[in-house]
Amino acid sequence: MTTKWVYTLDELDQAEAAVGGDWDRVRGLLGGKGANLAEMNRLGVPVPAGFTITTEACNTYLARGGELPPGLWEQALAALRTMEAKSGKRFGDPSNPLLVSCRSGAKFSMPGMMDTVLDIGLNDEVTEGMIKLTGNERFAFDSYRRLIQMFGTVVLGVRDEPFEDVLANQRERRAVSSDADLTGDDFRSVVGDFKDIVRRHARMDFPSGAEDQLRMAIEAVFDSWNGKRARDYRQAANIPHDLGTGVNVVTMVYGNLGAGSATGVAMSRNATTGENALEGDYLTNAQGEDVVAGTRPTKPLEQLKGEMPKVYTQFEGIARRLERHYRDMQDMEFTVERGELWILQTRTGKRTAQAAVRIAVELADEDLISREEAVLRVAPEQIEFFLHPQFSAAAKAGHKVIAVGLNVSPGAATGVVAFNPDLAERWAKEGNRDVLLVRPETKPDDVHGMLAAKGILTSSGGRTSHAALVARQFGKPAVVGASELSIDLGARVMTVGSLEISEGEWISVDGTTGEVFSGQLETVVPDMEDEWLSRLMVWADEFRRLGVRANADYPEDAERARKYGAQGIGLCRTEHMFFQAERLPTVQRMITTRSPAERREAVDALLPFQRADFAGLFRAMDGLPVIIRLIDPPLHEFLPSFEDLTRQLADLQIRITNARTLEEVEGITVKLLETQAMLDRVASLREANPMLGLRGVRLGILIPELTRMQVRAVFEAACEVTREGRKAIPEIMIPLTSHVNELRRQRAVLEAEAQEVMEEQGVEIGYQFGTMIEVPRAALTADQIAEYAEFLSFGTNDLTQTTFAMSRDDAESGFLVRYLGDGILPANPFATLDEDGVGKIMRMAVTEARKTRADIETGVCGEHGGDPASIAICDRLGLDYVSCSPYRVPIARLSAAQSALRARV
Amino acid sequence: MTTKWVYTLDELDQAEAAVGGDWDRVRGLLGGKGANLAEMNRLGVPVPAGFTITTEACNTYLARGGELPPGLWEQALAALRTMEAKSGKRFGDPSNPLLVSCRSGAKFSMPGMMDTVLDIGLNDEVTEGMIKLTGNERFAFDSYRRLIQMFGTVVLGVRDEPFEDVLANQRERRAVSSDADLTGDDFRSVVGDFKDIVRRHARMDFPSGAEDQLRMAIEAVFDSWNGKRARDYRQAANIPHDLGTGVNVVTMVYGNLGAGSATGVAMSRNATTGENALEGDYLTNAQGEDVVAGTRPTKPLEQLKGEMPKVYTQFEGIARRLERHYRDMQDMEFTVERGELWILQTRTGKRTAQAAVRIAVELADEDLISREEAVLRVAPEQIEFFLHPQFSAAAKAGHKVIAVGLNVSPGAATGVVAFNPDLAERWAKEGNRDVLLVRPETKPDDVHGMLAAKGILTSSGGRTSHAALVARQFGKPAVVGASELSIDLGARVMTVGSLEISEGEWISVDGTTGEVFSGQLETVVPDMEDEWLSRLMVWADEFRRLGVRANADYPEDAERARKYGAQGIGLCRTEHMFFQAERLPTVQRMITTRSPAERREAVDALLPFQRADFAGLFRAMDGLPVIIRLIDPPLHEFLPSFEDLTRQLADLQIRITNARTLEEVEGITVKLLETQAMLDRVASLREANPMLGLRGVRLGILIPELTRMQVRAVFEAACEVTREGRKAIPEIMIPLTSHVNELRRQRAVLEAEAQEVMEEQGVEIGYQFGTMIEVPRAALTADQIAEYAEFLSFGTNDLTQTTFAMSRDDAESGFLVRYLGDGILPANPFATLDEDGVGKIMRMAVTEARKTRADIETGVCGEHGGDPASIAICDRLGLDYVSCSPYRVPIARLSAAQSALRARV
Repeated sequence: MTTKWVYTLDELDQAEAAVGGDWDRVRGLLGGKGANLAEMNRLGVPVPAGFTITTEACNTYLARGGELPPGLWEQALAALRTMEAKSGKRFGDPSNPLLVSCRSGAKFSMPGMMDTVLDIGLNDEVTEGMIKLTGNERFAFDSYRRLIQMFGTVVLGVRDEPFEDVLANQRERRAVSSDADLTGDDFRSVVGDFKDIVRRHARMDFPSGAEDQLRMAIEAVFDSWNGKRARDYRQAANIPHDLGTGVNVVTMVYGNLGAGSATGVAMSRNATTGENALEGDYLTNAQGEDVVAGTRPTKPLEQLKGEMPKVYTQFEGIARRLERHYRDMQDMEFTVERGELWILQTRTGKRTAQAAVRIAVELADEDLISREEAVLRVAPEQIEFFLHPQFSAAAKAGHKVIAVGLNVSPGAATGVVAFNPDLAERWAKEGNRDVLLVRPETKPDDVHGMLAAKGILTSSGGRTSHAALVARQFGKPAVVGASELSIDLGARVMTVGSLEISEGEWISVDGTTGEVFSGQLETVVPDMEDEWLSRLMVWADEFRRLGVRANADYPEDAERARKYGAQGIGLCRTEHMFFQAERLPTVQRMITTRSPAERREAVDALLPFQRADFAGLFRAMDGLPVIIRLIDPPLHEFLPSFEDLTRQLADLQIRITNARTLEEVEGITVKLLETQAMLDRVASLREANPMLGLRGVRLGILIPELTRMQVRAVFEAACEVTREGRKAIPEIMIPLTSHVNELRRQRAVLEAEAQEVMEEQGVEIGYQFGTMIEVPRAALTADQIAEYAEFLSFGTNDLTQTTFAMSRDDAESGFLVRYLGDGILPANPFATLDEDGVGKIMRMAVTEARKTRADIETGVCGEHGGDPASIAICDRLGLDYVSCSPYRVPIARLSAAQSALRARV
Repeated sequence: MTTKWVYTLDELDQAEAAVGGDWDRVRGLLGGKGANLAEMNRLGVPVPAGFTITTEACNTYLARGGELPPGLWEQALAALRTMEAKSGKRFGDPSNPLLVSCRSGAKFSMPGMMDTVLDIGLNDEVTEGMIKLTGNERFAFDSYRRLIQMFGTVVLGVRDEPFEDVLANQRERRAVSSDADLTGDDFRSVVGDFKDIVRRHARMDFPSGAEDQLRMAIEAVFDSWNGKRARDYRQAANIPHDLGTGVNVVTMVYGNLGAGSATGVAMSRNATTGENALEGDYLTNAQGEDVVAGTRPTKPLEQLKGEMPKVYTQFEGIARRLERHYRDMQDMEFTVERGELWILQTRTGKRTAQAAVRIAVELADEDLISREEAVLRVAPEQIEFFLHPQFSAAAKAGHKVIAVGLNVSPGAATGVVAFNPDLAERWAKEGNRDVLLVRPETKPDDVHGMLAAKGILTSSGGRTSHAALVARQFGKPAVVGASELSIDLGARVMTVGSLEISEGEWISVDGTTGEVFSGQLETVVPDMEDEWLSRLMVWADEFRRLGVRANADYPEDAERARKYGAQGIGLCRTEHMFFQAERLPTVQRMITTRSPAERREAVDALLPFQRADFAGLFRAMDGLPVIIRLIDPPLHEFLPSFEDLTRQLADLQIRITNARTLEEVEGITVKLLETQAMLDRVASLREANPMLGLRGVRLGILIPELTRMQVRAVFEAACEVTREGRKAIPEIMIPLTSHVNELRRQRAVLEAEAQEVMEEQGVEIGYQFGTMIEVPRAALTADQIAEYAEFLSFGTNDLTQTTFAMSRDDAESGFLVRYLGDGILPANPFATLDEDGVGKIMRMAVTEARKTRADIETGVCGEHGGDPASIAICDRLGLDYVSCSPYRVPIARLSAAQSALRARV
């Protein structure tokens, strides 16, 4: 039995039978367009007669080096005979010609990537026949010249320019500006010129035989599957190269046969708002491509109701039926030929985030889909739209993009440029101005300025630079690493090419896209309180197993996190509190002093600050757990940088040689000695690899008074809040454990302090001690660790760094870019958890830990906690929760629900 | 039934029965000394009658808060009655007194840590009785004053000084210099004074009742188990605290009863050379402690043959018998009382490395032990003795230790101080002088000076500092981190306290002990060709499963490694070759240029150097595999440091402001621009965590021309050596793989280059490609890695750093010291493999890799490859080989054999 390569649109049942009835495999066999055409045909939707050549035929053709598989052509001709029988027309017959289109159609839509030839079947004689039949010379010759042009470019590989030149000449000759104003005679002459072009450029005559045209067009569509454009697109879109394309040969219908004809595109619901109302554009007396091309102003679909009421009603019904059938909003192409409606294509419609949510919820309300499906229909990233201000499209169109950097923290911000964090704060607080902080890169000292600013822009740094992390943490729009910017902090000016922007001038940044604009752009704020979103999130919460907590260091963050649905704090980084301007000098004194008494004093001075911080957190999270991580970063992070101090010192040395008076010399000498002393201390704290140095629990072991103070602050705050009638649930997290003894030792010291506070205060607090798992050795020995840890929290940022031996700071601005570009790594492991490596060691840790402590609480507090793909991995690992920045909490809730739903299958 | 707390020396059978006959448990019950006394008694060796109180009694006493367990005292008195019956003397009876000693004796020897009381049973009356019996007043009162002094200090806690003061006064009064010259009358008076001291300091009379004395002495010995000294010793020696001590109560015998009496110590073989001949010292008419105290010149044991021929012959026989019984060289104490020989103690004798080897081999030759046991008898560290020059004991005694640092590379070296590597090289090569290179710390630029020097001394840096690593690599004695030294490179002088040593003066360093001496000490070179060592190593090689290779970068190293028994090169670090003075400028040009052509040119210029390096290695290792690791370190390691350049720049800026002439300004400006350009390049290569940055295979992927050149050099060299009739077996090792794709990509590029070279040259080489496993992710995904790796080599230095998230450089000079001191880590994981963590991930890697490639070659090339404990772990992991510095190859061979033998049990 020969293979069946060709299915008419009536033969969907046979196609289904061939692949076992599975719709996905039918789409695979016929391509998406072909399968949908056949499906519509079966539904009784008016579709022009036609047939589909399978993707298998394409693959076989390509495998045979460009030879049609045996039997294909015969099957195609037989299908053509059926089309002739249905229409009563004959392919290539001038007296009653059948014309067809020939279009590609792969399993996954690759818009514009592959080829189409319309009006196949025309030649000199048939064109004359068409004129006789339609009485419309212009239509006939316009169609003919379109065939020659498309065939020439698509099938014969002639460039498009010579064709367009002929049209341009003709318009000039007639002194008209549009092809629509050319006459039948004009097109007759154009056809002659077009044939000459084919002869000259393709070294052959335009084939006049209808079957020759069709056969060549089919082969051209097959060949286009391996064209460079298509290959590149598949590469980028992650579509396998071995799927092949189907070819759809369909009877031509015409929207350009006068006033009773029309063509248009429509969505079954509003793609911007999601509202349940037909929406579209059309043109009377036009071909489909004219609507898309935008050469003539289109009319809103509404108007069709008046112009062709019967057609409109019919279309409305079809749209409704297709939506019900496909259970999603549809994007349709239609043509009206002399009052008769034809649907040429239907597919799932693209939509905005807002529309996606509303449509999903309303489809569920209409019982078209289940609530589970509704939750799966919205991409988690789309939720971001509801959380951040946006520039309106109009605003963007009116302003110039001056640079593009990394889109590290979404949202739009506009403000006046401040190059200095103090100035940014002053302008924002005292001047009540919108400020954008612009720096080459940011440091912990800059945080007050970052907080005061509406958004952040840096000229260097990567996705996990300080600026990016802090910006995401606080939901500040940020663009970093905009390397085209040259920032002169001294002159207080930045330049991009020839453009100079001084401090105080307006700029705008779009953290969602990475764009930087000059001037002040209007922003619009979408609504997280959106009624449909709220309902969708309620459903999501019902479906998910994984808890969602937030990483929050301040009460404001905690409040926001709770509003967004966080079920606790998964990570409070206590050291961020140390960076605040009024505390930093005390912190620096604590670090630099060599006197134990002075250190003790500095530590004591920090206690009330920390207590107040924690009390605020506990109040905000009343009744929910709060994980507080003890001090983690290397101490030198709290001091000025070695480089800055070295430069200052050199400066002072130059100044002293130039000093003229004794007073001057004395003044500089004092500064010089101070600077030298600070430099000495900074030098003594320098490390070759600070990431792997004295930090985390190592600090707690070397300076126990510091972590004891933190624990005291936590428990004093918890007691205070308890007395207010609220419930504080502290979980003390010890960072960077690599050996169980570190944890054992540190926990003993800290738990004693906790007990002491509770006794002093006469209050009992429910609490836990646990550790971060961010070092491979901790994961490997989690069975031992679990003896002393009541909870484990995977610090996947650092765990990724140590498991890969890859410093994030160095890699993301360096070789990692190359690795991702070259496909050496499938994804940035700092954005999406590396399941094979990091995921494997996490699984091991969970398994080992549960051997010791079956009910141990496990979670993730790295940035991966807000990444949908990573959340799915955490769900599969059976963790109890993920924790992410407050702004990603809704995204995490949805992702967790989707992961749970996908696991049900 | 009451517990049996007391065993007489005749009751060894009962003790054995009580613990099931196991000798180790008998030692546990009775302590080593008690068990050996009973054992000698059973063998018929003349041992004074006595009994042992068990360690269980000690533990029970301590657990009861210092109360003797019920029944103990009664059992002790009963045993005392037996002693009385045997000797015919009675405890506390002036007419015929029995005197006893009371000594501690734990399972493991803790020399000098615990307490002894002699002559128990003396009081005023008994002393008078002794005088009547012996006619020797001096002996009796000397014994009495010894009892009071020992009892006072040990039991009653009086300080020793007042007693010694009395003796000193008495000597002064008599105008004699030694106690030996004091008379009976003198001692009678001393006894009176001693009793006063006890009364005054202990607020009690010296107890005159013999049984009171004994009971109190027993309790004091028990108490001494928990003394601070003993606890500290156990901590350091890793002896459990819950073993308890036994107490041995034994009849006193006297070597000081005239010319027919003597006392001495002896070894059954020569403890220095191992020669099979009795060796010892004795004194006639003396007590045991006099021999040890060195107050009188002792006589060599030989002489006893003449003085007491019968006793000598008897002792010789006993020594032989004990050696045969214990199957090892014995260290014995003996006393001759009026012609009668008593053995007071026997134990396994301490010996030098040389003696240990010879004794083990000869005991096997004598069939006293098996060859397996002989191999197990020599500690691997003892082999080091044969490999490095040593200072003679006499030389050490004659010179002052001026500082002590870390003993990072063993051996003794003496030379004149050079503070500068160029000077060191010049003095060594041109001046033909012995030089010690002394620096605050060393850098790669200093290597030529280190190679030229006899030894290295630094004032900072840890066990794995650059100086330590390079020194070990080249077998140069080195002491690092001698922080008492203050080195002024400008003034070319170093100071220690008040001592100043200028460049050119002699000093000596002992890398085995960490000592630094002023002046020139004589060195002696032991012989690796030692006949007994050679035989032992042959046996070791027969027993071991694990292969041993060497880490060697130069042909000289490779030759030495081969001579020491290496079975191949496990690691050749190609970048060390780049640091050589004549190549470094080319390497720097390669790194700093921005022109691809110039880079290509620099890479090409390096090719002949590398080819010659590799050819030398292949010649030396003819027929053995050579693993060549492609370039690994971050590029900035080849450039001047950022700090140096910053300082130079600041200097130049100061100089330019002070410049007086235009020429001066111009000259400085040129330098300033050059320095700034280099600084810019260095700055652009700076990384936050270079250990986790752009290095290893990441370099190979970004600069493939560099690794391609290295592979070309390897294969051109292999072809050249093959044409000479030798066999080259290159194994190309790609470092720092974390993802299989890195390896796949890089191997494809390099293997193509290898094939090209072999085709050009018309020579076929057998080769392998593999990778280092030094990143946790590589270990976790070893199944994937093994698809593209024919061998795996664990880089355990880096794997330890990444698994612990602990930077070696930062940790070893910082918190790791505290961790080891506090017992948070049981051992330095950079010295001994961390079996729980790093070992676990290695086991996983081996298991996973073998799933993909069952015969994959696995080894270790980190420093752990030369550490006995780590080698045993590698053996248990089933690795194919360990690789270590050439100087540790014999140690590794022995360790591997011991591991295999221990596994047999």
